[in-house]
Amino acid sequence: MSLNLQYENMAKSFVQKFYALLDDPENRIRVAHFYKAKESLMTVEGLQSQRASKILETIQKLSFKKIQHVITVVDAQPTINGGDLICVMGRLKIDDDPPFAFSQVFVLKADGNSLVANKIFHLSELKSP
Amino acid sequence: MSLNLQYENMAKSFVQKFYALLDDPENRIRVAHFYKAKESLMTVEGLQSQRASKILETIQKLSFKKIQHVITVVDAQPTINGGDLICVMGRLKIDDDPPFAFSQVFVLKADGNSLVANKIFHLSELKSP
Repeated sequence: MSLNLQYENMAKSFVQKFYALLDDPENRIRVAHFYKAKESLMTVEGLQSQRASKILETIQKLSFKKIQHVITVVDAQPTINGGDLICVMGRLKIDDDPPFAFSQVFVLKADGNSLVANKIFHLSELKSP
Repeated sequence: MSLNLQYENMAKSFVQKFYALLDDPENRIRVAHFYKAKESLMTVEGLQSQRASKILETIQKLSFKKIQHVITVVDAQPTINGGDLICVMGRLKIDDDPPFAFSQVFVLKADGNSLVANKIFHLSELKSP
């Protein structure tokens, strides 16, 4: 077992960079750099995609103009093989709709380059009040 | 990269067994069998414990008499090293309190014995209506 003792800093740095890009319509496309061409897996609301190109396609299909992720919780743990498990909870505001609660889970690869091996996204069941 | 193609069945079987034990006051203590003595990590509402004995202690401290987990979503993905990433969302009913929404993430080890390497639990921000 080789744990990465920098897992908390890795998680904080990744979360900050990832959501800043995702919320920026001009640079959103660059989140694809966090995915590895043939290995990354993404599940969004129960639908799974593999490969960076598919993931990019999914991101490009997002039809909203303005999104804002407000992060309320970031929990991180080192994984057995030197990677980083990150759980994020927060609120997602899309265009002028009322905010939704969401949860998103990442497993980063062990190479220290913030590459995403796994990602699972879900809106929470309940709309924020 | 060695992916476990049985990840969906592993996840379903684990989730069923885990919550059945956790919701059963007479057998709750047996959930400790899912944790590995020196390696498992658990974070509950931001507090991290390591080692099965600590995790067991945390479970024993739970003061409620009656809990019921109603699972609404189970998403699973194979991890790079043959393990299984599982995200569970649902509602948690404790004693006679109104239900809470919760999310819980597990990474199972690759050995096929449903051993938990990582677990993160969070109540969602919002009470169910």
